[in-house]
Amino acid sequence: MKEKFFYRDLKLGILGGGQLGRMLLQAAIDFNLQTCVLDPDPLSPCRYFGQALQIGDFRSYQDVKEFGKNLDIITIEIEQVNTQALYELEAEGVKVYPQPYIIEIIQDKGLQKLYYQKLNIPTAPFRLLEEGEPLTRHLDFFPAVQKTRKMGYDGKGVHFLETEQDILNAFREPSVLEKKIEIQTELSLIGARNPKGETRLFPPIQMVFHPTAHLVEYLFSPAQVSNTILQYTAEIVNALLDSLKIVGLLAVEFLIDKEDKVWVNEMAPRPHNSGHHTIKANFTSQFEQRLRAILNLPLGSTELKSPSVLVNILGEPGANGIPFYLGLEDALKIDGVHIHLYGKTLVKPLRKMGHITVQDTTLEKALEKARLVKELLKVIHL
Amino acid sequence: MKEKFFYRDLKLGILGGGQLGRMLLQAAIDFNLQTCVLDPDPLSPCRYFGQALQIGDFRSYQDVKEFGKNLDIITIEIEQVNTQALYELEAEGVKVYPQPYIIEIIQDKGLQKLYYQKLNIPTAPFRLLEEGEPLTRHLDFFPAVQKTRKMGYDGKGVHFLETEQDILNAFREPSVLEKKIEIQTELSLIGARNPKGETRLFPPIQMVFHPTAHLVEYLFSPAQVSNTILQYTAEIVNALLDSLKIVGLLAVEFLIDKEDKVWVNEMAPRPHNSGHHTIKANFTSQFEQRLRAILNLPLGSTELKSPSVLVNILGEPGANGIPFYLGLEDALKIDGVHIHLYGKTLVKPLRKMGHITVQDTTLEKALEKARLVKELLKVIHL
Repeated sequence: MKEKFFYRDLKLGILGGGQLGRMLLQAAIDFNLQTCVLDPDPLSPCRYFGQALQIGDFRSYQDVKEFGKNLDIITIEIEQVNTQALYELEAEGVKVYPQPYIIEIIQDKGLQKLYYQKLNIPTAPFRLLEEGEPLTRHLDFFPAVQKTRKMGYDGKGVHFLETEQDILNAFREPSVLEKKIEIQTELSLIGARNPKGETRLFPPIQMVFHPTAHLVEYLFSPAQVSNTILQYTAEIVNALLDSLKIVGLLAVEFLIDKEDKVWVNEMAPRPHNSGHHTIKANFTSQFEQRLRAILNLPLGSTELKSPSVLVNILGEPGANGIPFYLGLEDALKIDGVHIHLYGKTLVKPLRKMGHITVQDTTLEKALEKARLVKELLKVIHL
Repeated sequence: MKEKFFYRDLKLGILGGGQLGRMLLQAAIDFNLQTCVLDPDPLSPCRYFGQALQIGDFRSYQDVKEFGKNLDIITIEIEQVNTQALYELEAEGVKVYPQPYIIEIIQDKGLQKLYYQKLNIPTAPFRLLEEGEPLTRHLDFFPAVQKTRKMGYDGKGVHFLETEQDILNAFREPSVLEKKIEIQTELSLIGARNPKGETRLFPPIQMVFHPTAHLVEYLFSPAQVSNTILQYTAEIVNALLDSLKIVGLLAVEFLIDKEDKVWVNEMAPRPHNSGHHTIKANFTSQFEQRLRAILNLPLGSTELKSPSVLVNILGEPGANGIPFYLGLEDALKIDGVHIHLYGKTLVKPLRKMGHITVQDTTLEKALEKARLVKELLKVIHL
């Protein structure tokens, strides 16, 4: 096969047309990369790129197979894709990054837990539950968190079990039952690996969760934790990058308990919500880094240029319709505030509509501005 | 008229589909702005945005009029546009930023010089020459620079006159004859102004020119000149922003002579090649700033996050065909190097094919890396 050049004749396809795809396409402009996207929704955030969006279902064998046949590289922005088609495309010579066997592990939280166990990576003690298995058998394991093995995201598919009473709303699907960790803080580390085996990690990110919604509310970098924790979490991410031999990005979420013990919560083989500040705040963004990785280019410096805080712009409770961004102008008045809208046509309660990156010379100043932004900006419908 | 929201139903049109339009569209994604572009070349850099590109001539009255009739705001990425159509569209309620009277001043280097004179802004002594006016009449003014009043850019339309011999190649078009300034250094300052009258300047940029091509070879920010010069040039830009009442960006190029005297060379009412590093190195990029200005949003902080150097990626002598970027991978190995390709389908000698931004903790380190990048990266045809 004739050598192809990324800036000229190489074709990259993305499964999924959400905001992660949108920001990946935005980064791809700098590399003059030819891109296309598969998504069932003609109004998905990637519609912004017009011709690049092809309508079809990334969960369908037929649609993925058809979409991939003239591509050089396929990547994903969501894990719930048809892996059978991806295995076949890979066998036919299309590069699939992350590799299908990694997508399969990530699609199933049970397989993820077994993988951590195999590598001796600390993760909350767990039991795998069959479909419909009565939770009464596992009262000895409470307080616990039940997670459906498949299709969970953004707090969906997660159920907390403290008392016998909570069993009433438990999931019947195959699930993972995890011992509840008494969380002190949560960290995210994003690493990259290219086919040559070169790896690089972004500076760690500390997450602050929404008090009720199991959804990240804001996060900041650099994380304010001990060097011991920083070093240990970095070792774990490097071990995962090497053992998975992933090509692309791997985002790993860590729970730190009240005794400073580190536990892997979960991982994602793609750009991650916790890394969106890298677009503005780091020498290389997570989206550019992913492109460098899958194009087998040298990985870029991940250094932070300034402390930064990322605020998710979420739909307000009760919002349901065409979005209106209340307080947006006031938020933009604050120096060092950058808005990034995802172009979603409808706002719903807690839906991620965009994000704001706040940068300043010190983390304290950036956090103060971020709190102000959160007070000012509300997404309602109008 | 019903109020429109930029992220929802407002429509922005851009006259010109080159790299400046391309980077403006890239910035517009964050604001979810609906954009379209008018350019005669279906292969122009803005073709990347597919449906956004409309084929037509921005110099044609008919094409501009037709293009503008359903838009809310029109802006330009090149000055050589049909202003008659823009005046009419403005009268019909379309916002035209920069305003047509400003575009007319900029289109004509003679009017520009007269404008500086009127405001008592220092600019090289000059004479306005009629079409075909014999240069023999102006030997007393030598050494001088002859510039055609219209259509010059990137060193085209500029002719140096040292001796009588040089008259042979002089332009016959209406032109400006300027006294030659003994240049010590060149600066660029980019300012922004929104309809509310709010203004902001980017930190000054120092330019280093190609030894033979009258084209910027690389530039860096912050500029290494005295505070007196910094203050004086900033005053001039503010005076121009206010007196023009421009909405959008104004880039002003300054010559500093060997006695530290400051002279305005020329200005451009749009994003400027000297400001491309702001995408990576400043809190707000010149492209985002321009969008904020024309959307009447608060202007963003222009602070530099790190010293930075911008290297233009130019076609090599003799290059003529499909571009091949020799040494690109080696350049990308250097930490803090970001490439930005414009997607031009053909390379020609000295054609701007893209740019590289180099960032580091000190200007010295960034300059050293930039020199290395310039040695490594060559655009040839293949």
